[in-house]
Amino acid sequence: MANSRFEYVKSYERDDSLLPGTYIVVRIDGRGFHRLSKRYEFTKPNDLRALELMNESAASVMNQISDIVLAYGDSDEYSFVFKRSTQFFGRRECKLVSTVCSVFTACYVYSWSKHFACALESDMLPSFDSRAVLYPSSKELRDYLSWRQADCHINNLYNTTFWALVLKKGLSEKDANKALEGTFSSDKNELLFSEFGINYNNEPEIFRKGTVLVKTQPVQSIENTMSERQKARATHKNAKIEIEQLHCDIIGNDFWEERAYILE
Amino acid sequence: MANSRFEYVKSYERDDSLLPGTYIVVRIDGRGFHRLSKRYEFTKPNDLRALELMNESAASVMNQISDIVLAYGDSDEYSFVFKRSTQFFGRRECKLVSTVCSVFTACYVYSWSKHFACALESDMLPSFDSRAVLYPSSKELRDYLSWRQADCHINNLYNTTFWALVLKKGLSEKDANKALEGTFSSDKNELLFSEFGINYNNEPEIFRKGTVLVKTQPVQSIENTMSERQKARATHKNAKIEIEQLHCDIIGNDFWEERAYILE
Amino acid sequence: MANSRFEYVKSYERDDSLLPGTYIVVRIDGRGFHRLSKRYEFTKPNDLRALELMNESAASVMNQISDIVLAYGDSDEYSFVFKRSTQFFGRRECKLVSTVCSVFTACYVYSWSKHFACALESDMLPSFDSRAVLYPSSKELRDYLSWRQADCHINNLYNTTFWALVLKKGLSEKDANKALEGTFSSDKNELLFSEFGINYNNEPEIFRKGTVLVKTQPVQSIENTMSERQKARATHKNAKIEIEQLHCDIIGNDFWEERAYILE
Amino acid sequence: MANSRFEYVKSYERDDSLLPGTYIVVRIDGRGFHRLSKRYEFTKPNDLRALELMNESAASVMNQISDIVLAYGDSDEYSFVFKRSTQFFGRRECKLVSTVCSVFTACYVYSWSKHFACALESDMLPSFDSRAVLYPSSKELRDYLSWRQADCHINNLYNTTFWALVLKKGLSEKDANKALEGTFSSDKNELLFSEFGINYNNEPEIFRKGTVLVKTQPVQSIENTMSERQKARATHKNAKIEIEQLHCDIIGNDFWEERAYILE
Repeated sequence: MANSRFEYVKSYERDDSLLPGTYIVVRIDGRGFHRLSKRYEFTKPNDLRALELMNESAASVMNQISDIVLAYGDSDEYSFVFKRSTQFFGRRECKLVSTVCSVFTACYVYSWSKHFACALESDMLPSFDSRAVLYPSSKELRDYLSWRQADCHINNLYNTTFWALVLKKGLSEKDANKALEGTFSSDKNELLFSEFGINYNNEPEIFRKGTVLVKTQPVQSIENTMSERQKARATHKNAKIEIEQLHCDIIGNDFWEERAYILE
Repeated sequence: MANSRFEYVKSYERDDSLLPGTYIVVRIDGRGFHRLSKRYEFTKPNDLRALELMNESAASVMNQISDIVLAYGDSDEYSFVFKRSTQFFGRRECKLVSTVCSVFTACYVYSWSKHFACALESDMLPSFDSRAVLYPSSKELRDYLSWRQADCHINNLYNTTFWALVLKKGLSEKDANKALEGTFSSDKNELLFSEFGINYNNEPEIFRKGTVLVKTQPVQSIENTMSERQKARATHKNAKIEIEQLHCDIIGNDFWEERAYILE
Repeated sequence: MANSRFEYVKSYERDDSLLPGTYIVVRIDGRGFHRLSKRYEFTKPNDLRALELMNESAASVMNQISDIVLAYGDSDEYSFVFKRSTQFFGRRECKLVSTVCSVFTACYVYSWSKHFACALESDMLPSFDSRAVLYPSSKELRDYLSWRQADCHINNLYNTTFWALVLKKGLSEKDANKALEGTFSSDKNELLFSEFGINYNNEPEIFRKGTVLVKTQPVQSIENTMSERQKARATHKNAKIEIEQLHCDIIGNDFWEERAYILE
Repeated sequence: MANSRFEYVKSYERDDSLLPGTYIVVRIDGRGFHRLSKRYEFTKPNDLRALELMNESAASVMNQISDIVLAYGDSDEYSFVFKRSTQFFGRRECKLVSTVCSVFTACYVYSWSKHFACALESDMLPSFDSRAVLYPSSKELRDYLSWRQADCHINNLYNTTFWALVLKKGLSEKDANKALEGTFSSDKNELLFSEFGINYNNEPEIFRKGTVLVKTQPVQSIENTMSERQKARATHKNAKIEIEQLHCDIIGNDFWEERAYILE
């Protein structure tokens, strides 16, 4: 059978390779996780099992794609940063975006049972979508990550207060929502402390700061800087690389000054 | 914490919505399935369990995304055709490509154990990549699907002959390769028949034609055309839609004339 | 001098070739023609010299780029339709858009003195910008052209009434504007007739319909359809092709049925 | 007449705004200047009139588009560099590319008669095409400009030698071509000197280096650096800005260190 008379349709594929010399960020987001978190009874405001499953899935992406130098995640989203010079998949947008998303999904579904006692049900499997964004300089890349971490903080402070009102004070979700309308961060901090004895700053860092995954430097150089590192970390190992898991501030300069190698 | 000073980074996201009035095809491809099929010992030249897992995963994509009107798959690839007027995700390329890929992957990993006795291993999970292509007219769309089905035929005839030489005649893979160099379809048909008593045309249609998934019309109209349909089919059901699974020719006109509604 | 160490910068050029199998429309628009028409004292509401200069420039574009099958223009804009299968410049968007715009501009500046007694001044030379839009089917392409011709009609009816109020009735531009606020087409037709004795339908077709440029068929086939053609036309000739200039309706079917060859 | 039922066609326009935070370079190229330079009898290897007309046209582009901070040209091409933060035309690629090209063309045609004694002929008007390229950092932007200037040098050395062989030694163009096949820069320098007494380094800088146009800083700061500047320059003035014309090296650091403000 001659395939050649149909082969012209291949010419309809467009070249979607991304501008060289820029940082590629691929961000995945959970699809319908509001509904999904209800079905599988995620604890509120944060479900540690779910976060750890996200982190494990993100680490598996980093393990498989060596040009990813950093990942940052919180809630049901994760951002993956490719090094500026990456030629992975010829920088083709769809390939990058779909591969990251698929590898993440595969690990999330596969490892679910390690973290959750309840089984996944076929009519509500977790899935994600993803997109790519380019940042020309390290300044813009850092601002992107700061944006996501600030967003994590804002959402977590809100959710912590909201669920305290619902779960501890017995308000309806509607009333809790109303109670928080127009409040500032300081109001929520105050409310948490005065009504529930919660000092927000003592909440776990994984909730307040999200999770940062970085690849460690070659062993020698790592040892030298070992003492400067934050304590809250775990390590995913494989033959080739070591991934460090942190829950630290990435808005300020400290994190970056200690790891200048990340942005080359 | 003020998020506003970082929010400008959102302006770096590009609008990737696809040209209206065109058929969107999203094609997923297995990543490293050569290695994966060895690890999990897929039967050669075709593993029916693997094909059925592909088909089930494709059906779950069609169930979740109502604007997909047809899917065609063989081996480790699947093409999903969106109706021309779809506004799903605002036709945004990355959203479409990543969502299809993620939903497919989730089902593939989740349903693996239904089809395979051996368990998946964490260091080799299946994953896929995907891309989108636009076809302006039904002529080009049909030629695209013909291209994939012709490709399925060419590969399957080759693989059937190759593995007969290896498994039945005891040739090394290298020698089998050599034996087939420069041969035409007719040579392979002849070789299969004379050496192995295999009439290629009697091989299962799912191997020779691949799999077509279509959404059936409203029940009444279906009944009227029931008798005209090919026998080889299975039906995936859910509350809303019914998906018909076929292994028929989609290069000729018959398939399309019976289902004019597919291309509107 | 080694050029090779800089040549990597070429890899930053993106492939901007436009989807095959679609009609490419390149539309040019005058830049700052409001100010320019004041400086060079264009007659109001329409300046025939300016329109003829536009038409001559458009014809020169069609003469140089053989894959343009139709052009439509009015006021300070012109749309050029490439045949669906064009491979001109490999369908590269920037090449197409800039070339059409430059050839048009060159002719406009060069031929100015043929149409206007006053000379161009170096601090206000005419210039244009342009864009490309794709239409997948002839239905959408015709709707695009209908959109532009309907727009021509709406603007011309407004301008005809507006300038009658200003030039014949002595209203200020501000008062004329106010007088027309919220009026319908029928109101303007009525106003033109009752106050100024103008039957809008008797206004010149070049003002009401704009200008259509089409390439004529090979001579034999032309002769057969000669009698059916509209009278209002002029012919630009060169060695290879003949361009017909019309001021007819292109919203209805007649124009297209007589010239089925245009859309292939 | 209702325009609304056609207006949907506007939704087929794509957003082509270019990635923020990058340098936009728009480069124009003469179309068919080989033929055009024969028709209008440009002197070989360089026609000073043609170069000056190019430079005047480029200056008119810079005058009209204030966000262009530098332009570099030689032969029949010119590159325009927009400042990194430009929001001109919302960074829309087609608008930028077509406007630069049209303004350049308008000036080139308009000013022709100032530079050439012979008149333009309607069947061969000059025109240009253009493209846009993005550079994320000043390093890459400088390498782009170095690439163009190195290219100018390579071409000019070749052309100078080629036309010496043809015009002074009487070789046919074919034989001159052959004589230069496989030669290095040093060979051409040697040949020019030994056969024609030409010291290539004494050739006019406008030929060897091309032309750089920069906008001068506010007057005070300019005065301070006045003495450091190269002599070969001319100034195009208008009310708002002053453009300096240079024929200096832009590959080394000196040019850029003296004008740090150009790249912000």
